[in-house]
Amino acid sequence: MRAPALRVAVLGASGYSGGEIVRILLEHPAVEIAFLGANRSAGATLAGVHPHLAGTRAAGLLVRPLEEMDGIDVALFALPHGACAGLAPPLLERGIRVVDLSGDFRLPAAAYPEWYGFEHPVAAWLDKAVYGLPELFRDQVREAVLVANPGCYPTPVALGLAPLLREGLIQPDGILVDGKSGLSGAGRKADEGAMFASTEESVRPYRFPGHQHTPEMERALELAAGAPTSVAFVPHLVPAVRGVLVTCYARATRGATTEILTDVLDSAYAGEPFVRVLPAGTMVDTKRVRGSNVVELQAGVDPRTGTAVVAGALDNLVKGAAGQAIQNLNLMAGFDETTALSTAGIYP
Amino acid sequence: MRAPALRVAVLGASGYSGGEIVRILLEHPAVEIAFLGANRSAGATLAGVHPHLAGTRAAGLLVRPLEEMDGIDVALFALPHGACAGLAPPLLERGIRVVDLSGDFRLPAAAYPEWYGFEHPVAAWLDKAVYGLPELFRDQVREAVLVANPGCYPTPVALGLAPLLREGLIQPDGILVDGKSGLSGAGRKADEGAMFASTEESVRPYRFPGHQHTPEMERALELAAGAPTSVAFVPHLVPAVRGVLVTCYARATRGATTEILTDVLDSAYAGEPFVRVLPAGTMVDTKRVRGSNVVELQAGVDPRTGTAVVAGALDNLVKGAAGQAIQNLNLMAGFDETTALSTAGIYP
Amino acid sequence: MRAPALRVAVLGASGYSGGEIVRILLEHPAVEIAFLGANRSAGATLAGVHPHLAGTRAAGLLVRPLEEMDGIDVALFALPHGACAGLAPPLLERGIRVVDLSGDFRLPAAAYPEWYGFEHPVAAWLDKAVYGLPELFRDQVREAVLVANPGCYPTPVALGLAPLLREGLIQPDGILVDGKSGLSGAGRKADEGAMFASTEESVRPYRFPGHQHTPEMERALELAAGAPTSVAFVPHLVPAVRGVLVTCYARATRGATTEILTDVLDSAYAGEPFVRVLPAGTMVDTKRVRGSNVVELQAGVDPRTGTAVVAGALDNLVKGAAGQAIQNLNLMAGFDETTALSTAGIYP
Amino acid sequence: MRAPALRVAVLGASGYSGGEIVRILLEHPAVEIAFLGANRSAGATLAGVHPHLAGTRAAGLLVRPLEEMDGIDVALFALPHGACAGLAPPLLERGIRVVDLSGDFRLPAAAYPEWYGFEHPVAAWLDKAVYGLPELFRDQVREAVLVANPGCYPTPVALGLAPLLREGLIQPDGILVDGKSGLSGAGRKADEGAMFASTEESVRPYRFPGHQHTPEMERALELAAGAPTSVAFVPHLVPAVRGVLVTCYARATRGATTEILTDVLDSAYAGEPFVRVLPAGTMVDTKRVRGSNVVELQAGVDPRTGTAVVAGALDNLVKGAAGQAIQNLNLMAGFDETTALSTAGIYP
Repeated sequence: MRAPALRVAVLGASGYSGGEIVRILLEHPAVEIAFLGANRSAGATLAGVHPHLAGTRAAGLLVRPLEEMDGIDVALFALPHGACAGLAPPLLERGIRVVDLSGDFRLPAAAYPEWYGFEHPVAAWLDKAVYGLPELFRDQVREAVLVANPGCYPTPVALGLAPLLREGLIQPDGILVDGKSGLSGAGRKADEGAMFASTEESVRPYRFPGHQHTPEMERALELAAGAPTSVAFVPHLVPAVRGVLVTCYARATRGATTEILTDVLDSAYAGEPFVRVLPAGTMVDTKRVRGSNVVELQAGVDPRTGTAVVAGALDNLVKGAAGQAIQNLNLMAGFDETTALSTAGIYP
Repeated sequence: MRAPALRVAVLGASGYSGGEIVRILLEHPAVEIAFLGANRSAGATLAGVHPHLAGTRAAGLLVRPLEEMDGIDVALFALPHGACAGLAPPLLERGIRVVDLSGDFRLPAAAYPEWYGFEHPVAAWLDKAVYGLPELFRDQVREAVLVANPGCYPTPVALGLAPLLREGLIQPDGILVDGKSGLSGAGRKADEGAMFASTEESVRPYRFPGHQHTPEMERALELAAGAPTSVAFVPHLVPAVRGVLVTCYARATRGATTEILTDVLDSAYAGEPFVRVLPAGTMVDTKRVRGSNVVELQAGVDPRTGTAVVAGALDNLVKGAAGQAIQNLNLMAGFDETTALSTAGIYP
Repeated sequence: MRAPALRVAVLGASGYSGGEIVRILLEHPAVEIAFLGANRSAGATLAGVHPHLAGTRAAGLLVRPLEEMDGIDVALFALPHGACAGLAPPLLERGIRVVDLSGDFRLPAAAYPEWYGFEHPVAAWLDKAVYGLPELFRDQVREAVLVANPGCYPTPVALGLAPLLREGLIQPDGILVDGKSGLSGAGRKADEGAMFASTEESVRPYRFPGHQHTPEMERALELAAGAPTSVAFVPHLVPAVRGVLVTCYARATRGATTEILTDVLDSAYAGEPFVRVLPAGTMVDTKRVRGSNVVELQAGVDPRTGTAVVAGALDNLVKGAAGQAIQNLNLMAGFDETTALSTAGIYP
Repeated sequence: MRAPALRVAVLGASGYSGGEIVRILLEHPAVEIAFLGANRSAGATLAGVHPHLAGTRAAGLLVRPLEEMDGIDVALFALPHGACAGLAPPLLERGIRVVDLSGDFRLPAAAYPEWYGFEHPVAAWLDKAVYGLPELFRDQVREAVLVANPGCYPTPVALGLAPLLREGLIQPDGILVDGKSGLSGAGRKADEGAMFASTEESVRPYRFPGHQHTPEMERALELAAGAPTSVAFVPHLVPAVRGVLVTCYARATRGATTEILTDVLDSAYAGEPFVRVLPAGTMVDTKRVRGSNVVELQAGVDPRTGTAVVAGALDNLVKGAAGQAIQNLNLMAGFDETTALSTAGIYP
């Protein structure tokens, strides 16, 4: 007898991440999209808010006010920062598991005022939240009731640096991360700075210092590698829609070479379906992983200056958001971790 | 007992269409990718020629010289014009079915010298070739041994105009088609005119008069609607990678209105999984169908001038090439027509 | 003794066209930018509203409320439709000459309710307005006190078709214009449909039927060629910032060939600094004219169907707006017509 | 009496930098474009190799073989690395001054085998070459007979960091430079990796370690600030045509703050027409300086980690190549340094 489908709610269904969650779940044989929530678009159909999904079997599903959610097993939150912290606890108390794509459960309580601008309202739940980077914390995710889905920038940083820190191949302090992101990371809301006319031919840094992914990188690395690190982070916008590239700089320790770093990453991720470590001398490319749940990683050492460089590329809406959330969902629900998730990029 | 998988060869595996065929076939439960052929890349792996497929189970398949092909049931040809006409007949004689993505089997023999610049070498096979536009010629495709997969421009033109011609709502002569295409249609080969620096911010017509899709449009319309038409066609390049938009202009006959045209298209494609007729007043968008096998159609009448306008949008590498080829393959093999084909666009 | 500079006001200084007017006027030796008006940005400096002009001598000019305008000789209006019709008459009565970049003075009074949605408030001034397409109406512009600066789409249509109509080489009825525009034509205001994430990889028609440039095309052609025409027009958005391409289709009259059409255009624009007629068989390209005041034109005939095709390309913010306005200003003021205007595109 | 025009040769006239030199020189009242040299395009007109310049007075100039150059005062070399080192010395000996846009005269002789792959053929001339960054070495440029025009990446790095090094506000070792470049930097030659279809939506590092601009950065900083530095550099390609952004990371010394760094840069470049230091907290943008000879600089300190960050943006074909070459030419010839050079970006 076939098991009944897992009933999943998507909150924030009208945004880019919400749409991507739905698109991926449509390929999931064991999930029922049981609720689509979005206050502003309530009353519209899925096809109305996401016309690219008009040809799918979910096209006619109604988007409903968040408070009408009922009869679900798992809630995926793709709402702006601050919303899930308020909405999740009552669900959790009723036994509904939660994956939160916002930053609400990624940091210690003390960090919220500085980095997110609010006092965390349910600090007790922070201790129970698991940081949902499966390749580093798979076992905890399996047991979690509340998963903090990682940010798009911290995901490749943590995956790329954690194994090197564990092996002592790079210094934990003085890490620099230079991030490049396409525009979909800024969300769907109209904004002059994100217009086509403002963005084509524009490369620019933003929000430095102070991007909220900075402490998340430090925390993820500490959780994964066991010791504190210090990270400075400058994000940039580039004229692309999808895609995040991070270039991480650290001081290599004596003896570290491109080959050694590459080998360590290779070993760390052997058998991982969604991490692709490139051979020494090969370069990552966001375009290759677009639409897939794959992270590409590359490592190198500049022997002249002793600088270790690790670059990572992913699709910010998939491995950097919706895809990783479903990877976490699969683990929490006991499904095959790769269900519904693609390893093939859409190219060109 | 499960049926043995259909053994499929992909010829021209190193090009964009070839890569897209492989990407889609990887989702096909009843197909085995039995041979990847490409003379220039012979010896490389699939991941070597298409790094975006490095994470898939086909990554290690070797690309081999065309003449080594053996042990297959169906051959999908994604080679330049002129190649399939030479290579297909011996296969067909051995009972191997063929889907050709080039123009080699789309026109009557007499048209080849003018439009393709060569005398057709196997005119007898032209009569047996079926024009593979399933929504118009599904029954013939089911029985075909040789399918001429339609061009990216003629597909939306034929789908958009055939029902209106059949109903006598537009005049068959004086049809004008203005086409807009992204750069992937020009193929993967390096060329100064297709460089990023030459293309961003560039909108330009090309190959007018004389684009080889012109007689294909006329022929597809005649086959579908039963009477000769006259089409002038101007294609344009726009700074996009995927996507073809056609805007078709015809003289509306007395009484034709936007609503009537829309209704006729709606009825013609009711139940079709891959044709989406937009409500009157709504506009098609190539971005919405990217990565999917869907064609969006929209019809309107300018009552002031009596001009009927039908616009159609598709992903030239999917419904305009690889996806449609697999749709044809599904029909020829008796599979569900939609197997492995997506109706969800990748957006944004 | 050097003449005192012409004191020019730019109204709507904070928009794209306003910024482009200022950028060009900075190269003008006989013009003083005497007033920058924009209600919403009033109080900011030019560099504040247009940071790309921060290094220029006008960087510190204050943007002021429109009603503070005083002490000027000529006013260039780059405000939304409807504004100039209200603001210009009192200025004109005080002897201030006006160039209006909006549509307020381009059509007969009777056309405004249908095409612009308002009753024209000062129909008497419409008769005195000159349609400012210098290559067709140069003598009238020289004498004008009120110039209606043409729309970006009608400019290449009128330039491309008027000589052919005059020579009887194309039929005046049944003209079709397929327009392709970059996003800057939609203005600077934030809008979801014009976001980078909505626009990259998107090609789509818009506003059909009913774009307000349709009657302007008909009127410009009638003024220039002396007989009524009938035009249907479908505009499209393509993922570019600057650039308008129009592809015009008409029935060729007996005997018309690509060479004849090209010769007629060549003769019509011999000596014109801002019109470049391409040799037969060469294709126009918006990228080549970017940043310049040049229109590229190309003509061809499809002998199979008797279709004449004329394509025209320009930079919508220069020859399609600000550059043409300054070309008109030069004529009105008795300056060399080319002053401050570039014939060199910015490429790549 | 007006002085006779300076007769200038442009070698490598058919490339992007060559075209940009010509475009700018067309605005120069004291320069005659006396020779256009390019071996591969020899025999074509300027308009033939650069159709965007077809409307200019230089359109008909013939491109000629390099060896036919004669009767010139100054030669601007925009040829690939290695060419100028061979061709310049005989010219210099005849008293012709040279500005070289390649890397042939930027480094000490000993560095060429490692970074450029050749033994420098005329090491004696290296000592006489002046590094042509006018804002740092203006006096030497005025006296130079041979100017090494800086690379596009080193220009903003040197301008951004030299004043801070001089003031001891950052540590000279452990400097990291993360570069982002559009595709025009890769030149005009067709290449699969630079195709539109390969580049849109692609962000990727390249040539690390070992980019030849690395030692140039170190040398420029040492020349300007008087002490050795150590720089690691990772360049990236982003989907833009023009534009280089560098993000430079260094350890701030005790007491350095965003305000202090900004003040130091402000003072260093007060009065410089082509350097724009942004107020603290404002972000540079390549799009704002496109088409202009301006560098935008921004400085900040992350107090949490003690990281100083300096970002710089320029148009790689103007301030990063052709514009800077003409700025040098102006200085060498005693013209006003800003002649023909724009401070206004083309936006949007």
